[in-house]
Amino acid sequence: MSNTFGKIFSITTFGESHGAAIGVIVDGCPAGLEIDEAFIQQELDRRKPGQSKITTQRKEDDTFKILSGVFEGKSTGTPIALVIENNDQRSKDYSHVAESFRPSHADFTYEKKYGIRDYRGGGRSSARETAARVAAGAIAKLFLRKSEIEIYAYVSQVGEIKTPHYTELDLSKTETNIVRCPEAAIAEKMIALIDEVRLQRDTIGGLVTCVIKKVPVGLGEPVFGKLHAALGHAMLGINAVKGFEYGSGFEGTKLRGSQHNDEFYNDGERIRTKTNHSGGIQGGISNGEDIYFNVAFKPVATIMQDQQSVNKEGNEVTVSGKGRHDPCVVPRAVPIVEAMAALVMADFLLLARSSKV
Amino acid sequence: MSNTFGKIFSITTFGESHGAAIGVIVDGCPAGLEIDEAFIQQELDRRKPGQSKITTQRKEDDTFKILSGVFEGKSTGTPIALVIENNDQRSKDYSHVAESFRPSHADFTYEKKYGIRDYRGGGRSSARETAARVAAGAIAKLFLRKSEIEIYAYVSQVGEIKTPHYTELDLSKTETNIVRCPEAAIAEKMIALIDEVRLQRDTIGGLVTCVIKKVPVGLGEPVFGKLHAALGHAMLGINAVKGFEYGSGFEGTKLRGSQHNDEFYNDGERIRTKTNHSGGIQGGISNGEDIYFNVAFKPVATIMQDQQSVNKEGNEVTVSGKGRHDPCVVPRAVPIVEAMAALVMADFLLLARSSKV
Amino acid sequence: MSNTFGKIFSITTFGESHGAAIGVIVDGCPAGLEIDEAFIQQELDRRKPGQSKITTQRKEDDTFKILSGVFEGKSTGTPIALVIENNDQRSKDYSHVAESFRPSHADFTYEKKYGIRDYRGGGRSSARETAARVAAGAIAKLFLRKSEIEIYAYVSQVGEIKTPHYTELDLSKTETNIVRCPEAAIAEKMIALIDEVRLQRDTIGGLVTCVIKKVPVGLGEPVFGKLHAALGHAMLGINAVKGFEYGSGFEGTKLRGSQHNDEFYNDGERIRTKTNHSGGIQGGISNGEDIYFNVAFKPVATIMQDQQSVNKEGNEVTVSGKGRHDPCVVPRAVPIVEAMAALVMADFLLLARSSKV
Amino acid sequence: MSNTFGKIFSITTFGESHGAAIGVIVDGCPAGLEIDEAFIQQELDRRKPGQSKITTQRKEDDTFKILSGVFEGKSTGTPIALVIENNDQRSKDYSHVAESFRPSHADFTYEKKYGIRDYRGGGRSSARETAARVAAGAIAKLFLRKSEIEIYAYVSQVGEIKTPHYTELDLSKTETNIVRCPEAAIAEKMIALIDEVRLQRDTIGGLVTCVIKKVPVGLGEPVFGKLHAALGHAMLGINAVKGFEYGSGFEGTKLRGSQHNDEFYNDGERIRTKTNHSGGIQGGISNGEDIYFNVAFKPVATIMQDQQSVNKEGNEVTVSGKGRHDPCVVPRAVPIVEAMAALVMADFLLLARSSKV
Repeated sequence: MSNTFGKIFSITTFGESHGAAIGVIVDGCPAGLEIDEAFIQQELDRRKPGQSKITTQRKEDDTFKILSGVFEGKSTGTPIALVIENNDQRSKDYSHVAESFRPSHADFTYEKKYGIRDYRGGGRSSARETAARVAAGAIAKLFLRKSEIEIYAYVSQVGEIKTPHYTELDLSKTETNIVRCPEAAIAEKMIALIDEVRLQRDTIGGLVTCVIKKVPVGLGEPVFGKLHAALGHAMLGINAVKGFEYGSGFEGTKLRGSQHNDEFYNDGERIRTKTNHSGGIQGGISNGEDIYFNVAFKPVATIMQDQQSVNKEGNEVTVSGKGRHDPCVVPRAVPIVEAMAALVMADFLLLARSSKV
Repeated sequence: MSNTFGKIFSITTFGESHGAAIGVIVDGCPAGLEIDEAFIQQELDRRKPGQSKITTQRKEDDTFKILSGVFEGKSTGTPIALVIENNDQRSKDYSHVAESFRPSHADFTYEKKYGIRDYRGGGRSSARETAARVAAGAIAKLFLRKSEIEIYAYVSQVGEIKTPHYTELDLSKTETNIVRCPEAAIAEKMIALIDEVRLQRDTIGGLVTCVIKKVPVGLGEPVFGKLHAALGHAMLGINAVKGFEYGSGFEGTKLRGSQHNDEFYNDGERIRTKTNHSGGIQGGISNGEDIYFNVAFKPVATIMQDQQSVNKEGNEVTVSGKGRHDPCVVPRAVPIVEAMAALVMADFLLLARSSKV
Repeated sequence: MSNTFGKIFSITTFGESHGAAIGVIVDGCPAGLEIDEAFIQQELDRRKPGQSKITTQRKEDDTFKILSGVFEGKSTGTPIALVIENNDQRSKDYSHVAESFRPSHADFTYEKKYGIRDYRGGGRSSARETAARVAAGAIAKLFLRKSEIEIYAYVSQVGEIKTPHYTELDLSKTETNIVRCPEAAIAEKMIALIDEVRLQRDTIGGLVTCVIKKVPVGLGEPVFGKLHAALGHAMLGINAVKGFEYGSGFEGTKLRGSQHNDEFYNDGERIRTKTNHSGGIQGGISNGEDIYFNVAFKPVATIMQDQQSVNKEGNEVTVSGKGRHDPCVVPRAVPIVEAMAALVMADFLLLARSSKV
Repeated sequence: MSNTFGKIFSITTFGESHGAAIGVIVDGCPAGLEIDEAFIQQELDRRKPGQSKITTQRKEDDTFKILSGVFEGKSTGTPIALVIENNDQRSKDYSHVAESFRPSHADFTYEKKYGIRDYRGGGRSSARETAARVAAGAIAKLFLRKSEIEIYAYVSQVGEIKTPHYTELDLSKTETNIVRCPEAAIAEKMIALIDEVRLQRDTIGGLVTCVIKKVPVGLGEPVFGKLHAALGHAMLGINAVKGFEYGSGFEGTKLRGSQHNDEFYNDGERIRTKTNHSGGIQGGISNGEDIYFNVAFKPVATIMQDQQSVNKEGNEVTVSGKGRHDPCVVPRAVPIVEAMAALVMADFLLLARSSKV
């Protein structure tokens, strides 16, 4: 069941890049939730291809249809199945992939693991599958609104260009530019870099930072169910992700305990911490401060250049990028990161209902 | 079931730092495996407290007893229960924790989540729980030997002091010094730094790098069951971990696709990649190259200095470190990282038995 | 995740009786299996409504579409999504159900549990959902053919009319009559009884017996994963089922151990038992003899008669059956029982791949 | 993970009949529950061997030790590990089993599945494992008391001797006699029959009926998570069980819908049903009426008579019962049935917390 994620609020996705459709079943969504279809579409639109000059030119409407689980506009507690048809497949672009393995793609490993693969557009390993997650994540977001939890992801780095710490940014500005960076001046540089890389027929990586605000204290389970471990699992399951860090992250390893510890104080209303190197999570459980984490995305593997590879017979061949691809994945990854974060938070909100007698 | 990890080769751990005992049930270990108890003890000894001047002075024998699942020296396919008694509890060292919340510990979050907590030594949130994982991981390692898979973890960074890339190290040297760094000269500097920090009554963080060699092609499942996502989940579930990256990791985000892609070639025996930015995993599935990843550990939260905090009544108080603690967690984290890696690999080896008809 | 069944070969179903569609995702089907679509359709046709005078007159084509997971006719190891559109909904037949609770239906319990329900045709609680299971079960059957496992279900009782023990029947005759009883003379009596009951605007219950042949020794897991417990769980999850017994079942409780025990002998090729009160399962694990079990179905709850009930406001009302319903569910339950049995066996075949080192 | 049961309130058991110990980890017990150790012991005493002339003469104290998860008398939300040492092993009684397969035991199937087995006392397949379930079930019962749910199991049949329907019995009388039948006159006949069978060196089967009262409306999940399917799974996982039926069960299949349907009425306080053929569950969800079900136990396989069998080499041999065994399992099965029922109900109570937004 590697295509299922979550314990109570859980999703199961299906679909290949160039198959008939992709989709998702959301099981465990509590009954009585208003399912705002316009909002789901809006989230899908944030992820869909062909949005701007710095994303792939594949055109997909990414319109969805709900097949079950919603009655008179509300969730009924039964599985919500949601399907997105694939329209703009140009499978013939991929005939060259049928016999050869593209470098740093999943062609080789799928071939060896299964002995068969749908090579068209990467098949199941395509990031197209994440549209299903975004749709499911939109439903999770609707549920989180009931608890006032807010999720903000944005592009914090492209190549070497990076933003300052999230506390110095206005996160409401993220959607004001095509690279989804809340700082306009930095966004411009990022866009210029991506465009430059695109013209070089190359690609580049980057970071997405995600901030979760107004989290109640007590979400997360000890030991193997730590909240940040679940968030990490969720993020590492997104295509092209190479790393995850939360709170002080990798840099925090260089600090002394006396610098890193978050002292508690009472702000009059509730217990807070003066600093937040913990990233809102202590011992795997939310402490009420902002949760924040970084997700590292490698440069997109498909480049419009010749590369050395081998074919199924083991002979060395040259492969060159075809099809329509993103020069940098992070702008479109923003809604995906938010969706996976929303799914984790929704699940842990429900799990926390069983913490006490 | 947040205390259970794994789908087929699975473990469930129990126990508090100062309770009667800690332990683990290994369910799903295939029958017929020789259970080398001396090896399990040896692994536990690598993790146990009191090994050297740079680790906590708590003395625990960490001797274990197998209660079930092994007959005439071999696994029988039934659950292997393994118990480690707690001996050297000095619970009175922790009476100050009963009423107050130590900064950057789990005291506050457990209290709020459960309304009750075993405060002695951190209770369930103590890293003492990881002894159970090391014992289970030793059994997983015994199983992996059948497939010749090898796991090498080591300390790659303490504070700002770091080793070169693993390919430039002799990983057989890791156990030759107390900090578990394979490069003697760097190890000395690390030890000096930890000792200095200890004398300052402070603590410091670091990195553990793990390398997995001779992995068969085809381990890992698509989408949510990606091999690196499972490894990340496993590592992020270890106490004090703040980040995980594999292959090129966070640094790789700065590269171009043309630099980052791993071109395939045929070495005569099998298909290989010229570089290994992928860290041995493509599309979530092992490709036969070395798997390698970094795990970031924050500085230990318990410092021997006064800190501001609040108590259960919400009043501000001063807490100061007592008990016996590690100035730096990474040397003892090495066998824990290996154990969790072994558990993941054992589980995915078994899952892979169902990939094809 | 109550809509998911199975550990490795697992299914997740969705859909309401009068919604847009029902369907299923099969996750964990091994790669390389030829997906015979004609066979899947044939299985769906065995279950579909409107087959004969003794079944409901609702007309559904029950044609399906595979959306993913199959490439060039074979399973690829990725999720197989299969959708069946609902065509012949006559939802207005159910407007009376919106406000009142039909006796012995799920109207009342869904209303109280969720606070909202899709009342049209019973919504999610309708047996229409089982079409998805039959489709998935057909895929499981295709997989079982590789191991030569054969599954035969048939109607063994309607009201008081019953067949002799399965060993006295020719199970290849089951499909030769509309009631699906392999003994022609008894089948005629059953059909006459069902027809009589139908004319009385009433319904009647019955038994389905299932026999699984050529099962390899060693399927089933100890303790909570016993093969018969999984089969029981599967059968009790079918609509209208009230009981499950395997081997000697309830009658066996009256025997002495000396009568009931199955003595072993060696038939020259392999170890067999002289009798088979164990029903092919000992200690939860298959022993190579025929597995057989009975599944008890209550009389269909919808009758074409006036009944006392209450409405959502708690006032007493009279409800009378409308819509199109089966006078007896067992003939159409035969393929459902086979499908669920096939899903259990497929899953345990894969689980057994991990029994030994 | 076949040794784990439950989704939120879950248990994992371990241990062989003649190993060092048996035990259980209860994971997911909500925090703040008073753990009444005397009550747990009392439940274990109801199951323990050597209670009377009609049970096995093996003497086990069955005293337990809690190793974790309880602090100052209350559950902390962390895993509760509970261990029962084995004392009165007479393993040499079983040396004859090492080489031969006892009829209708699990010797043969374990040997074939695993290639190795702990033959002493049946090893893992021994009903001794159920002591761990009874201990865990006692904790579940303590939790259920908070919701006022009450569970009553009793012996309703031994051989052909049976009680009337539960509604005609005084269930508070169950513990007044050694066979655990609430009707004294019938109990006497049952005891006489068991004693007679015992003197014949034979065994006999029987039924346990279980009644669950004061169940809130809304427990149980649709489709594969039906409450009765989970109860059936739980019961079929108990050693020697051959069948499960709830409500009208197998007999109900002979009724007409007009006889079987449970009409609703309003008793002034809440909606009730006039009859209860549904056994308190409709569409897999509790409706607030009594839940009741029967569990069929076969005659104990170990008889003190010579039987034909084969040994590991496939040669035919005679085996004769040794060791200490029950002539009839049902009196001691009563607390086991209650324990498993309590575990299911506790889990579904917690699952139901997530039904609504």
